[in-house]
Amino acid sequence: MMSDPTAYRLYYWPTLQGRGEFVRLVLEDAGMPYVDVGRTEGGMAELQRWLAGGGEGRPTPLAPPFLVREGIVLSQVANILHYLGPRLGLVGPGPAAEHQALQLQLTIVDLVAEVHETHHPLSAALYYEDQKEAAIARTNLFLEHRLPKFLRHFEQAVVVSPAGVLTTDPALDHSYVDLSLFQIVVGLQHAFPAAMGALLQELPKLSAIRERVCERPRVAAYLASSRRLPFNHHGIFRAYPELDLLPTWAAPPSVSG
Amino acid sequence: MMSDPTAYRLYYWPTLQGRGEFVRLVLEDAGMPYVDVGRTEGGMAELQRWLAGGGEGRPTPLAPPFLVREGIVLSQVANILHYLGPRLGLVGPGPAAEHQALQLQLTIVDLVAEVHETHHPLSAALYYEDQKEAAIARTNLFLEHRLPKFLRHFEQAVVVSPAGVLTTDPALDHSYVDLSLFQIVVGLQHAFPAAMGALLQELPKLSAIRERVCERPRVAAYLASSRRLPFNHHGIFRAYPELDLLPTWAAPPSVSG
Repeated sequence: MMSDPTAYRLYYWPTLQGRGEFVRLVLEDAGMPYVDVGRTEGGMAELQRWLAGGGEGRPTPLAPPFLVREGIVLSQVANILHYLGPRLGLVGPGPAAEHQALQLQLTIVDLVAEVHETHHPLSAALYYEDQKEAAIARTNLFLEHRLPKFLRHFEQAVVVSPAGVLTTDPALDHSYVDLSLFQIVVGLQHAFPAAMGALLQELPKLSAIRERVCERPRVAAYLASSRRLPFNHHGIFRAYPELDLLPTWAAPPSVSG
Repeated sequence: MMSDPTAYRLYYWPTLQGRGEFVRLVLEDAGMPYVDVGRTEGGMAELQRWLAGGGEGRPTPLAPPFLVREGIVLSQVANILHYLGPRLGLVGPGPAAEHQALQLQLTIVDLVAEVHETHHPLSAALYYEDQKEAAIARTNLFLEHRLPKFLRHFEQAVVVSPAGVLTTDPALDHSYVDLSLFQIVVGLQHAFPAAMGALLQELPKLSAIRERVCERPRVAAYLASSRRLPFNHHGIFRAYPELDLLPTWAAPPSVSG
């Protein structure tokens, strides 16, 4: 089968959700044809050629994910979604809506980086097992201070659309930021079930967005397909029992005699 | 003196360059009137009211810096510069130039976050002194692997403008990304003089941009003024002697026999 020459070509690692998943979700939800190049035959060699500067004179991306089509080469997740959003109807019209979505997405990017740091606080160049002690210390403080700060911020950014639906974009019922919020909530539930079980109880709007996104037909079909990679120990959101800690704000009150 | 009601109001911590400095440099270079609110009387209380959600119904920023003017409230450095760039002539015209600048700026944001992690690898909620051992381990691996990767990426993103000037924006002689590159180079030189002394020798284009930006009249006037805060132990770029490590790629060859 010939590939569609107008299809987006997404370059990302083939064995993990990672940062690429935020782009996959947008393309899947919009029903856009795309090639997940790293998962095709010869795709990884092609990805490596790009990183080595072989992109036909176009700017070399520093790292995956990057998206290529007809002379455009975009890297950085927030930049890619800022490009796709207006083209796929996933952000409200006009600069104000676009800046508001970009701002929220950049805060999601910050959270994703901090989640990665929980299991790699010393270096991505070391194995998790070789920085486990630091990872426990970092995760403990992340769950205590940072996780609630980020998620409460996203909760207050959720509004009711004109049609009565919860979303982050006041002009639409659904946005690319909503898709990313879905991904961080399910990812955090996978990685930190104890803390998230407690925290989501006070975040009904974020929980509602997670449910609504799950039920979108193309998202549901994607999640049920083999294109959706499972969470594993290569991605951002990793389930390590020793990092599934209960913050003090989530601990049940002590019972005294 | 009454303040100009059309002036931008920049909200940032008053005692450090930090992430706010990337915005200050753009406003200063463009000669835009602005109020550095945190450094005015009562300014910190006003900043705290915004963070507590008192922004007159407008979206609450998660953290400084944020920029306010006539109904716009923007946070996240890359989002603020993406907004200011076209308005101040600091990015080439059209979406392709804007996306390219945003992409580079987001990679600068990533680098800035990693530099912050060098002195706070376990948590921003702990003092540096309480995570010094982890900081040394993290810095060692940052200088070994990450610093050269980032700066070589920026070096290859520098192009020659139509007027023969080195810049990151092929349509202009100067861009907001150039201003941010200046800031990271001088910041890294302050924090890691040993590694940077070796690395800059192979990065002539980045060194040239640093020099060119320094010599822009409004930047030079700003740097010589009291508005430019000195580097200190509160900001991103901190000079700790124990973190000024020499990576193996910078070590002189050993002399035998």
